[in-house]
Amino acid sequence: MFQEKSHPTATYHTAALNRTGVNGESEIIDEQRFPISSPNNPVTGANPEQFLGLALATCLNATLESIEKMNELPHTSEVRVDVYQAPDVHNDLMFLVDATILIPLTDAVNGRKAKAMLELAERRCPVAKLVGDKENVTFQLVHEW
Amino acid sequence: MFQEKSHPTATYHTAALNRTGVNGESEIIDEQRFPISSPNNPVTGANPEQFLGLALATCLNATLESIEKMNELPHTSEVRVDVYQAPDVHNDLMFLVDATILIPLTDAVNGRKAKAMLELAERRCPVAKLVGDKENVTFQLVHEW
Repeated sequence: MFQEKSHPTATYHTAALNRTGVNGESEIIDEQRFPISSPNNPVTGANPEQFLGLALATCLNATLESIEKMNELPHTSEVRVDVYQAPDVHNDLMFLVDATILIPLTDAVNGRKAKAMLELAERRCPVAKLVGDKENVTFQLVHEW
Repeated sequence: MFQEKSHPTATYHTAALNRTGVNGESEIIDEQRFPISSPNNPVTGANPEQFLGLALATCLNATLESIEKMNELPHTSEVRVDVYQAPDVHNDLMFLVDATILIPLTDAVNGRKAKAMLELAERRCPVAKLVGDKENVTFQLVHEW
């Protein structure tokens, strides 16, 4: 029987649920519903690749935003996350995840500063902490798109 | 300058982008836009915790669905993923992720079979492969909610 675990230090809690499998819907319990569909299905809907990309892009850029703020800089960073589905060993699938981080160069931010900001963001972002050590996850810094 | 990496074996590609930081929107490029807001913000919107929960719940249940199919079983599994934000060392944040997997017992599926199905799903699900080895990620099998 389901029993929620106790996490006394937690400051926020949310719960996602999937009943349908890959075609149908996933939901945030008591909040939003998200139509989903397999990448191989022409029906519109999100899929695990997209949710993972959204999680990392949003989390890493939110972390960069807080680092900009800490440095009294305006928010200019952007994060793009490309997610690929590819065959793994044993006919399984794996995701390849390439995060590209835009930090524009300015009088206040040179290349070295931008690199340090990204390194700090990778260490602080909770999603990067979960996936960033995998060999199929990469991070690349750019100064223009 | 951004240049998409070459992944010749990839069978699907999608790209997520966040420009705004934690309040505003994230998007799947050329497809959907998702309003987002910080967990601490009363405005409605998704957040990284929710996207991560949706990614794991959808992916793991889709994998279980394929395992059910392989075993000529009807689809009955469900996956709930509770995500918590909690303080980490150095005043950082971390996510605690508890996946609960429902596989109802039937004449065709006893407790041992259900356990084997979940173990296989954990090994095959691309999102579980990315996050499943972390100590703050747990998997629990139940036979009823």
